[in-house]
Amino acid sequence: MNKKTILIVGGVAGGATAAAHARRLSEEAEIIIFERGPHVSFANCGLPYYVGGEITEKEDLLVQTPENLRCRFNLDVRVMSEVTAIDPVGKRIEITLADSNEKYWQSYDELILSTGAKPLKPPIPGIDRPGHFSVRGIPDVDAINQWITLQKAQRAVVIGGGFIGLEMAEQLQRRGLQVSVVEAISQVMSPLDPEMAGWLHKELQSHEVALYLGDPVAQFNSPDEVNPAAASVVELKSGAQVPADVVILGLGVRPETTLAKEAGLTIGEKGGIKVNEFLRTSDPHIWAIGDAIEVQDFVTKEQVLIPLAGPANRQGRIVAENIFGESIKYPGTCGTSIFRLFDFSVASTGANEKTLRRLNLQYEAVYLHPPAHASYYPGAHRLAMKMLFHPGNGKLLGAQIIGKDGVDKRIDVLATALNAGMTVHDLEDLELAYAPPFGSAKDPVNLAGMVAQHVVHNDIQNAQWHEIANLNHKESILLDVRDADEHSEGFIPESKNIPLPELRKRMDELPKDKEIIVYCQTGQRSYFACRLLTQKGFKAKNLSGAYRTWQIATNSNP
Amino acid sequence: MNKKTILIVGGVAGGATAAAHARRLSEEAEIIIFERGPHVSFANCGLPYYVGGEITEKEDLLVQTPENLRCRFNLDVRVMSEVTAIDPVGKRIEITLADSNEKYWQSYDELILSTGAKPLKPPIPGIDRPGHFSVRGIPDVDAINQWITLQKAQRAVVIGGGFIGLEMAEQLQRRGLQVSVVEAISQVMSPLDPEMAGWLHKELQSHEVALYLGDPVAQFNSPDEVNPAAASVVELKSGAQVPADVVILGLGVRPETTLAKEAGLTIGEKGGIKVNEFLRTSDPHIWAIGDAIEVQDFVTKEQVLIPLAGPANRQGRIVAENIFGESIKYPGTCGTSIFRLFDFSVASTGANEKTLRRLNLQYEAVYLHPPAHASYYPGAHRLAMKMLFHPGNGKLLGAQIIGKDGVDKRIDVLATALNAGMTVHDLEDLELAYAPPFGSAKDPVNLAGMVAQHVVHNDIQNAQWHEIANLNHKESILLDVRDADEHSEGFIPESKNIPLPELRKRMDELPKDKEIIVYCQTGQRSYFACRLLTQKGFKAKNLSGAYRTWQIATNSNP
Repeated sequence: MNKKTILIVGGVAGGATAAAHARRLSEEAEIIIFERGPHVSFANCGLPYYVGGEITEKEDLLVQTPENLRCRFNLDVRVMSEVTAIDPVGKRIEITLADSNEKYWQSYDELILSTGAKPLKPPIPGIDRPGHFSVRGIPDVDAINQWITLQKAQRAVVIGGGFIGLEMAEQLQRRGLQVSVVEAISQVMSPLDPEMAGWLHKELQSHEVALYLGDPVAQFNSPDEVNPAAASVVELKSGAQVPADVVILGLGVRPETTLAKEAGLTIGEKGGIKVNEFLRTSDPHIWAIGDAIEVQDFVTKEQVLIPLAGPANRQGRIVAENIFGESIKYPGTCGTSIFRLFDFSVASTGANEKTLRRLNLQYEAVYLHPPAHASYYPGAHRLAMKMLFHPGNGKLLGAQIIGKDGVDKRIDVLATALNAGMTVHDLEDLELAYAPPFGSAKDPVNLAGMVAQHVVHNDIQNAQWHEIANLNHKESILLDVRDADEHSEGFIPESKNIPLPELRKRMDELPKDKEIIVYCQTGQRSYFACRLLTQKGFKAKNLSGAYRTWQIATNSNP
Repeated sequence: MNKKTILIVGGVAGGATAAAHARRLSEEAEIIIFERGPHVSFANCGLPYYVGGEITEKEDLLVQTPENLRCRFNLDVRVMSEVTAIDPVGKRIEITLADSNEKYWQSYDELILSTGAKPLKPPIPGIDRPGHFSVRGIPDVDAINQWITLQKAQRAVVIGGGFIGLEMAEQLQRRGLQVSVVEAISQVMSPLDPEMAGWLHKELQSHEVALYLGDPVAQFNSPDEVNPAAASVVELKSGAQVPADVVILGLGVRPETTLAKEAGLTIGEKGGIKVNEFLRTSDPHIWAIGDAIEVQDFVTKEQVLIPLAGPANRQGRIVAENIFGESIKYPGTCGTSIFRLFDFSVASTGANEKTLRRLNLQYEAVYLHPPAHASYYPGAHRLAMKMLFHPGNGKLLGAQIIGKDGVDKRIDVLATALNAGMTVHDLEDLELAYAPPFGSAKDPVNLAGMVAQHVVHNDIQNAQWHEIANLNHKESILLDVRDADEHSEGFIPESKNIPLPELRKRMDELPKDKEIIVYCQTGQRSYFACRLLTQKGFKAKNLSGAYRTWQIATNSNP
C-alpha cells in the first residue's frame, strides 16, 4: 500500500509540503512534482521585499531547490513541465515540456492538484501594455527590477490596494519611486472594514503615496508628449490621468482551475476546486490544496477563497496523511492575515463587519486604542483594535488590529481564541505574558474582552461612529469628557465638553430626557462617565472607539 | 445594597483595580484605600528600568495618583496609612498614621486585602549592611540611585537570579556598572528548566556579567584595605570574595500575611492567604487578592504563589464584582511570565519539567529551534522552544521560549492555548498571521504542534539530551546527519557523521541491532533521517532539540 505513485501538480507552498510529507510517510512511494515554472518552493510572499531591496539575494527566495528536494526527500522534481491534461479514468496526466513543447503521459495512483491562483486581469483597454507587471513569481520581479533600472523609472502606479498592491507600494517608495495607488472601491484592503482602512489611507498619505480611491482604471493610454511616461498614462474613471513609468497590477487572484475543469472535477460556488473535508475532489484519487481550492470559513460557514501560504502548507500535510490512510479533516479557515505598511502592521482574523452584515449574522462591534505595552515604558504607541462578537453568547467572531508594534501578537492570540471557540469572557481571563517592554498587566486582548463584556452584560450601551452623522439633536446630545485642552484641539461638532473629573459636580447641566452619547479620546474615560451617568439615571451611551475612531472613520482633521 | 462601605488594604495593582471597578459598579458605595507607603498604583514592574535610565521620569512610574483616583472615581485614598489590625467580629480595621503614629478605627461592610508580598531576607550575617537594597517601591530605587551616585559605585553584586535580580543586573550593566550575579542553586530563573536556563547563563556571560551559580552567600563582610568596596565584600560558600559597591537583594518574596494571620484568617499550605474560588477568605466579609494569596495552578492543580501584576488585576475586578452580588470564579493561573535579558526575551507558561516530575505527572518534552520569522527575510534569529505535553492525549502542559524577537507572541499564543485546554494537534491547526517580517507559513507554534504530534502518534521515538551522558555505547550509537563542515565545528563525542543527503546510499554503514540516536543542528534533518531509518527497519531515535539543545544543556563549547 505504501508503494503508491503520487503525482503533484505545482511545486510551490502546499505542493512541496505535500511531497516532502508524503516521503516522510513512505520511503517506497514514487513521488513526482511537476512545476511549469523554473522554481519550486520559492518564497512568493517575499517577492515585494526583493523588489524593494530589503531582501538582497535572489537565492534567499529559493526556499528549496529541485536538487535539495531530491537529496533530502528522494523526490523527483520536474520544472518547466506543465501538466496540460488529466485523464481521471486512465489515472494519468499529460505533461508538456516548456522548452521543447514535447508531451508525455505519466500514470498515478493519487494525484494532488496544487495549481495555485492566477492574477486577475480584467479587460481594461491597454492592460497588456509594456511596463505592466503582475507579481506572482521570481521571473516577474526580475522583469520589474530590470524595467525600473533600464527605464530609469521614477513614477510607479499600483493598480489595486490589496496585500500585494500595498506591499509593492511600500517597497517601491522605499526604493525611491514616487508611488500612486489606484483602487476601484472606496477603501484599500478589503479584509478590513472601511473605518479601519482609514488608518491605512492616512499612513499612505503621510508617506507621500498618492491615493485614488473609488476611482477605477478606465484605460491605460500610450504616453505622448503632453504626458510622457515610460509605461502608460493611467486614465481613471474620474478623468484623472496618472503617468506611470511602471505599472504594478495587484488586482487580486482567482483559482487556477483550468485543468480541474477540463478533467470534469466539480468547481465550487466561489470558483475554486471543490473538495470535501478531507481535501478530496469529486474524483476519489484526485486531491487539491492551496489557492486553487475553496474551503469553509469556520466562523461564517461560508465557502471562501483563501490564497495564503499558511493554510496551503497545512493542507499539504493533511492530504499526504490522508493518501496514506488517515482521515484527517481540514478544520476550515478564519482567514488570519497580516502585512506591514510603512510604520504600521495591519492584521485581521475571522469575520469583518461587512461580511457579518451581508450574511445577516448577529454581531456587535467594539473599538479600543490601548498602548501596545505599558505606557510608562518608552515607545508605547497605541493600537487601533476592532473586535466583533456575538452579543448574546459573547462568542468571538473576528478582529482587526493596526499599530506600530505588538499587532502580530494580539492578532495571533485572537486567532487562537477564535480557533478555540472562545468568548469575550474568556479573553478577559487570558493570562498573558507581561513585562513593561512587552505588554501591560491588562493586555490589550484582556481589555478587548472587558470592553466587549460590558456590552454582552448590558453594563453599558454603545453607540457607533456611523450613527453620529444622522444624530437627531432633539433627542440626543454629544458629551465630550476629555479635558478642555484636548477638546479645543478638535471635537465632534455640536458636542458639549465636561471633563470627567468635573462630571460628578456638573451633572445638573445634562438632560435626563435625552440620550447622552459620551466620548473621550480613546474610550476609557467615556466608559467611566457612562457608568456614572447610568447609575444616576441618565440615558448614556458610550461612543465605541471614541474620538479616535470617529476621526479616522470620517476623515475629519479639524 | 449598593451603599456598602468597602475598605481596601494596599493600593498597588490589584487594590487600585478593585477600588476603581467597585466604583464603576456603585456610585453610592464608600470606598477607601489605605496604603502604608507614599504611592498608590505605581509601576513596580518598571522599577529596574528607572534605575537603568530607560525610564527617565519618576512621574512616569506613578500610574495613578491619589488625586487622580479621587477625581475620576470618587475614591478616598489614604497614603502613609498602615492598617495595623483587623477586627473581623466588629467588622472594622485599625489604621496607624505613619507620620504621627496616631491610630483610628474604620468600619467596613466588605474588606479587601491587597497586602502584597515582602522581600525575602534570610538571616545571612551582614545582610542589613548599608548599601544593600531590595527593589519593591519607588523609595527603594530612589535610594539605590542616590547610593550609586554618591558612592560612585562601579561594582554591583546582585543576590538572586530571579526576575528582579536579572532585570536589575541588566539595567545596572546598562548604567555602566560591573555586575555579578550570585545564585544559590545551579541555575538562574527557576521557572525555567535548567537546560533552558543555559541560554541565560550564556547571555549573561556574553555581556560580561559575572555569574556565581550553586554558590550561596555565606556572609556579607565589611570592606577593608585588602578588599575595599563601598558596600560589602560578599563571601560565598565556595570562599569566593566578591567586592560590592552596591548590593541588590533579589531573593524572592513571600506573601504579606501578618494582618490576615492576626485576624485569624486561614493561611494556605504555601503560606499565602487562603481564598475560595470567589476569592473570599475564611471570613465571609473579607476578600483577598494579589501577591498575598495563594491560588490554584490550573495545569498542575497545585496551590501556588504567583506574585505577578496580571493575575492581581484580574482578581481585583473579580472581587469587586463578587462584592456586588456576582459569583465570578477566578479560573486559576498558569503562571505566564516574560522578561528581557539584554538581547533575549525569556518567557514561560504552564508547568515546567521540574514541576511535572516532582508531581509525578505524565509528560513528554520536545525542543525546537525555528527562526522567529521567514528565514529569507532579514534578521531571522532562531528561537529556543521547549514544550511539554501529555503523551497520551496530547494536551498542552507548558512551554518555555527564549530568543531575540517573537518570543512574547509565541508564549501568548501558547498561554491562550493552555487557557483553552488545547492539544498539540490543535496547535498544528492554528491559523496564525503570516507575512515575511512577522512569521513563517508554518509558525513556530504550528511546528511545535507538529513535532509533539510525532511523539503522540509514535511516528518517531525521541531521545533527550540528558540521556546522552549515560549512553551505553554497546547498545546505542550516535549519528550526526549534518554536513561534514558543520560536524567538524563541533559534535557530540563518539558520534558518526553521515550527512542526510548521503544517508539513503550509506545506510549499510549502520547497525540494525543497535539503537541509533540521530541528531542534526536544530532537529529537522534528524527527524527526516529518523523517519527514513525507521521505515528501513532501523531502531532510530531523534535527539530532541538536536545539537543546539545538547550543547547549551551540557555547556559544551568544543
